[in-house]
Amino acid sequence: MLLKSRVKYIQSLGHKKSRQEAAEFILEGPKLLDECLRADPARINAVYALETWLQDHKALLDQIPSAIVEPVSPEELEKISVLQTPNQVLALAQKPEPSEPPARIDMPVLVLDAIQDPGNLGTLVRTADWFGLTHVVCGHGCADQFNPKVVQSTMGSILRMQVSYTDIGTWIRSLADVPVYATMLEGRNIFTMDPIDRGLILVGNESRGLDPALAALATERVTIPRKGHAESLNAAVAAGVVLAALCGR
Amino acid sequence: MLLKSRVKYIQSLGHKKSRQEAAEFILEGPKLLDECLRADPARINAVYALETWLQDHKALLDQIPSAIVEPVSPEELEKISVLQTPNQVLALAQKPEPSEPPARIDMPVLVLDAIQDPGNLGTLVRTADWFGLTHVVCGHGCADQFNPKVVQSTMGSILRMQVSYTDIGTWIRSLADVPVYATMLEGRNIFTMDPIDRGLILVGNESRGLDPALAALATERVTIPRKGHAESLNAAVAAGVVLAALCGR
Repeated sequence: MLLKSRVKYIQSLGHKKSRQEAAEFILEGPKLLDECLRADPARINAVYALETWLQDHKALLDQIPSAIVEPVSPEELEKISVLQTPNQVLALAQKPEPSEPPARIDMPVLVLDAIQDPGNLGTLVRTADWFGLTHVVCGHGCADQFNPKVVQSTMGSILRMQVSYTDIGTWIRSLADVPVYATMLEGRNIFTMDPIDRGLILVGNESRGLDPALAALATERVTIPRKGHAESLNAAVAAGVVLAALCGR
Repeated sequence: MLLKSRVKYIQSLGHKKSRQEAAEFILEGPKLLDECLRADPARINAVYALETWLQDHKALLDQIPSAIVEPVSPEELEKISVLQTPNQVLALAQKPEPSEPPARIDMPVLVLDAIQDPGNLGTLVRTADWFGLTHVVCGHGCADQFNPKVVQSTMGSILRMQVSYTDIGTWIRSLADVPVYATMLEGRNIFTMDPIDRGLILVGNESRGLDPALAALATERVTIPRKGHAESLNAAVAAGVVLAALCGR
């Protein structure tokens, strides 16, 4: 049985401040745990799972002898889960050291101005991973990468990608001679552009778009031409289309 | 003050069955209401808004003389809202008659197998609207288009797009000589394809992908080549990239 204090602690990891103090984050479901075990098993600190799941995954648990492993009831899992439908297992993982934004840009890097929705941020990290990027640089206005909803919607990419937080404007100005592509509602038709092998791809806030001060740092403004009537595209979809055009082909 | 029975009624519209019986759906926030007023003002049956908002929008309310208009307190709005942060105004709109899937395909049509996440479904409808499509055909496994979360994430596109529900397999077999593009993890590189002016673009379930029985109806399987390590793309992002390649250029 899970102690009340433990339940409270795990629930507290839904808040950024608690995650910072504890240096732990939540990941849920067999798939994500499996990704974490493949990427870095030493990172798993604790596993809370239904008895049936534990029985079926003894070999897997042997990989992480130092982790706390506790069976929980479906009711207990419900209490600690952040998912609408809890999925058998919840783990606590050690947060990696905060990473620095790259100081030299010899590859494409996705740069996010103020992506506030955790689902969007996670999807963006996952999309960058699909198209072969290794770095995502976030402005301070972005959701926290270790927010449980971000972690879940990265579908494991959070464990592979370098995600750093910085003052984007200052950072971009510190870089010498780097192409900066700003995704805007008006700019060069993205489908007329050649693939790139280096540079920053800037994507702005879900409703306000890109901060004009950042847009001013762009060497090229790019746009996805609208053929129909929607007022805008979802930020993750827009970034997906731009990454596909610049890095996917 | 909002009657308890009214609060209960509005809350019940979160459920598909109640929406079907009442033939009404919820839309929230000034932007979405504005879209609805531009598209079809007669559809608005009721407006519940903060006093300040009502004061500022008298001219707008003059457009809908037959609608119930009631001031609500922030606490009342919180009770009836489905948003995390209620946004000044909530309206009830008349559901349109269910639309039929098109019987002749002389344009590109997005076809969704079993998109269960309301946010994904709404984003897909919005993306199709951006790229100039007019029809989205959903399998019975999809979320309901009038689910409040779907409505919100379409950002107004729900009011312009024809979204119909049907047994997809039966419908496709009833169509003569139609190109059917199935979005899969393996298939022809989407970036090598020419834009299309007609045909079905099939997108499958978020975790299972496309039903093999539907994939078997494809005249062409298409794929977004993976360059990195993510196991898959989010369904809405994948559809965005495919729609961009086939219909966006």
